[in-house]
Amino acid sequence: MGKRREIIIVSNRGPVTYQRGPEQVREAKRGGGGLVTALGGLALHHDVTWIASAMSDVDREIAEESHGRAVEERLENGADYRLRLLAHEPSAYDQYYNVVANPTLWFTQHCLWDLVREPDSERSGLVEAWRNGYAPINAAFAEAALEELSRRPEAIVFFNDYHLYLAPRLVRTRAPGAALLHFVHIPWPQLNCWRVLPEEITVAIHDGLLANDVVGFHTTRWRSNFIQSAQSVAGAKRISGKAAVSHAGTTTCLSARGISIDPDELAALVEDPRVQEHERRIIETRPEFLVVRVDRTDPSKNIVRGFRAFELFLEQHPELQGRVTMLSCLDPSRLNIPEYENYLEAIQREAQRVNERFQQQGWTAIDLQIEDDVHQSIAAYKQYDVLFVNAISDGLNLVAKEAPLANERDGVLILSENTGAHEELGPFSLAIDPFDVRAQALAIYEALTMRADVRKRWIEDIRAWVSEHDLAWWINGLLHDLDDCRARRGEPGDPSAKAKTGA
Amino acid sequence: MGKRREIIIVSNRGPVTYQRGPEQVREAKRGGGGLVTALGGLALHHDVTWIASAMSDVDREIAEESHGRAVEERLENGADYRLRLLAHEPSAYDQYYNVVANPTLWFTQHCLWDLVREPDSERSGLVEAWRNGYAPINAAFAEAALEELSRRPEAIVFFNDYHLYLAPRLVRTRAPGAALLHFVHIPWPQLNCWRVLPEEITVAIHDGLLANDVVGFHTTRWRSNFIQSAQSVAGAKRISGKAAVSHAGTTTCLSARGISIDPDELAALVEDPRVQEHERRIIETRPEFLVVRVDRTDPSKNIVRGFRAFELFLEQHPELQGRVTMLSCLDPSRLNIPEYENYLEAIQREAQRVNERFQQQGWTAIDLQIEDDVHQSIAAYKQYDVLFVNAISDGLNLVAKEAPLANERDGVLILSENTGAHEELGPFSLAIDPFDVRAQALAIYEALTMRADVRKRWIEDIRAWVSEHDLAWWINGLLHDLDDCRARRGEPGDPSAKAKTGA
Repeated sequence: MGKRREIIIVSNRGPVTYQRGPEQVREAKRGGGGLVTALGGLALHHDVTWIASAMSDVDREIAEESHGRAVEERLENGADYRLRLLAHEPSAYDQYYNVVANPTLWFTQHCLWDLVREPDSERSGLVEAWRNGYAPINAAFAEAALEELSRRPEAIVFFNDYHLYLAPRLVRTRAPGAALLHFVHIPWPQLNCWRVLPEEITVAIHDGLLANDVVGFHTTRWRSNFIQSAQSVAGAKRISGKAAVSHAGTTTCLSARGISIDPDELAALVEDPRVQEHERRIIETRPEFLVVRVDRTDPSKNIVRGFRAFELFLEQHPELQGRVTMLSCLDPSRLNIPEYENYLEAIQREAQRVNERFQQQGWTAIDLQIEDDVHQSIAAYKQYDVLFVNAISDGLNLVAKEAPLANERDGVLILSENTGAHEELGPFSLAIDPFDVRAQALAIYEALTMRADVRKRWIEDIRAWVSEHDLAWWINGLLHDLDDCRARRGEPGDPSAKAKTGA
Repeated sequence: MGKRREIIIVSNRGPVTYQRGPEQVREAKRGGGGLVTALGGLALHHDVTWIASAMSDVDREIAEESHGRAVEERLENGADYRLRLLAHEPSAYDQYYNVVANPTLWFTQHCLWDLVREPDSERSGLVEAWRNGYAPINAAFAEAALEELSRRPEAIVFFNDYHLYLAPRLVRTRAPGAALLHFVHIPWPQLNCWRVLPEEITVAIHDGLLANDVVGFHTTRWRSNFIQSAQSVAGAKRISGKAAVSHAGTTTCLSARGISIDPDELAALVEDPRVQEHERRIIETRPEFLVVRVDRTDPSKNIVRGFRAFELFLEQHPELQGRVTMLSCLDPSRLNIPEYENYLEAIQREAQRVNERFQQQGWTAIDLQIEDDVHQSIAAYKQYDVLFVNAISDGLNLVAKEAPLANERDGVLILSENTGAHEELGPFSLAIDPFDVRAQALAIYEALTMRADVRKRWIEDIRAWVSEHDLAWWINGLLHDLDDCRARRGEPGDPSAKAKTGA
């Protein structure tokens, strides 16, 4: 993993959140989201301080008691690290999280607005939420990062995602020489999608990101979009021949590296008895073929169109009715946002409609499992003949990288062209246009009837790719990009760096 | 106007459509849309053959009787020309017009889809409509253009708009040396908006356009988007340092010229007694200030957000309640398309809501005039203090160029940044973000309280700009671009062209 570094991870969600267990004992519960798995590995090899929002009441107590200092903790993977929880003012946090980050930035970056009607920034109070929620919460993160930096001046500050676009500029202003890295885990859309936000917000987002030494994206596509929007929105200059832009005297290098998984961790999880219990149930009830999708119930995941595609496939292939089920393991998501609540209802309605249409003794067309159950999902990974990923837009899509490693049936990956993963796994999968229901129906049939040797080669190619481009590759690559970028500028980034030529 | 040229205009709608009048006499009625005014002027100075779809039953009779030949006609402006009407098979025309062109291409190029739900190309039968409607209708247009070209081999074929993307390639294949010009009157969006259509369609659209010598757009913004999408979608190569791309051995030059108006024709219309009648009514009933909008009831026009902005403005300025009315002259549009029907209902609902909220003796906040009445619109042009154009996306927006020439109150133009006109009139207007209701409310107040000398200078600057960049400038510019592009390639475009250096 290279040499041990000091890293200050800054992300909205931390690796754990605390609850009261039996007898009021504090218990750490693993935080949600793939980010935690991805970043948790860092602490095994590096000296990590993690700054995150206090989520639960117990988190807030801990934040209070620690008087603004990071506390020594140990991760599930056995790694020691320091955790610093920030107890935000609840109404500011609500505006930051439930108005600005979700749904506004999420919808904007996935280009999901119904523009005739949305966004309605006046009704949602977006600008107030930006000023009174997003900005002060970012300032609190920046303040904490600066304090940690003052204790470890050589540390890398590693910002994560769309919750923290303003923090880097605030840190840069007061720590001009600090090593700042930011990874954007969701798509970076084309300029027209950004234009739906008030200019004040769009400019500040770009300006904030451009305070970093390195900004990372999953794909060259998102990176190209950033290069274009940074020029248009912030007046940044592209550095000819390089994936870098300069702005306000700073050069920002732009990485394109898709995040990945830890194959060993997945391998251990596959052996979990709860996975095997689910798998037994699936094996007992499954028909000949299983098409599997595993997603949060997010409108960006395109679940309703997926059901229509499966319906069309069944209509076109009556000989396969009764022989294929679409097992849909869907984690209910953000149900406090009306658009998400409506979308979950649409999913249920559509599944019911399709199931009623094709009703048959002992067979359900769409097996809808709406629950947050990672063990069930892994069991489904093992059992799929076709893995179906048709997202409208997706920063990467880790399911596409993860499931083939667990699969035991040489299953075929159907993968939306608008996922970041498609840039890596395109050659080993059936590409689909997420808006083209007919193409998706065709792809399902094609996948189910594909020659065994091709299926086997493809899944082995995916496994080889992911094993080579695993989580360690991703994080080491980013650290290398950071050192490289700073060394080329003659900054004291990596103390061991030899080449310190000017840019 | 330069020398007289032979021009074959190809557009879906012709300059006239025929109806039976009293005693069954055929009467020509001027066709709808700004295109007719724009292109009708061409016949005054050039030898014009116009190919268009037969719209009415009488049009179809004429098409039948003329046995595939163009018929001598005279336009309202006194110009002689030849008209060739094409009687299409009705169900093919329906698919071409009501499935492909509107709403699919219109919505796609204005980026208006609610992508979580639309487009649903499977349910709309888009691919069938493309193959069985759009393609054969385009082939019929191409066939007619080739026949006219065989009679006038030196003629320029001038295709118009999004109904005819396939025709140029069909003509080019059989007339490799022909001079082909295409103007796209609506926005050319960024690539992500194109990606919602099946690849078969997107590729064919780009390939068709790239068969032209010159493709024209209203703005450099739409042109840049085309340069990008032509490279990505069709594999065209950008010609370094030039606004041109090459594809399949052809070089296509790309013009950016905003269409305009004929100031003399507008001046004559302003004097029409029907305009003056409307103006008297407006003067009798108007309050101190009038904010005017003139639009089709198209979702792209952003009428509902405009009403919310006006509501917010009234809320923020109670002192102006009773003193300002938003006169909205709205031409009901495409009501056979459900999305348009719903949008008209939303407009009516929103106006009623705002009016009920601010109800006052003798004053209506929003004066909603839903009818197709050009004379009323011109009267409103004369009387506005603020002209309000907040389109979500608009190829150009001719109202912004036309109304200031008729206005008699030094009215201020508020103009959406997403209109093509903004690229020309931005310096003489208040720019607004069409998604930012608050900014629009602020702009209304700012416009109403602007210093008289600034208002006067701005409207005079607009008039000077439009007078210099009028319709003749637009069409002569396009013809010049065509000659220039062909001359640089050494093609026999303009017989008088001296410089025939190779590219």
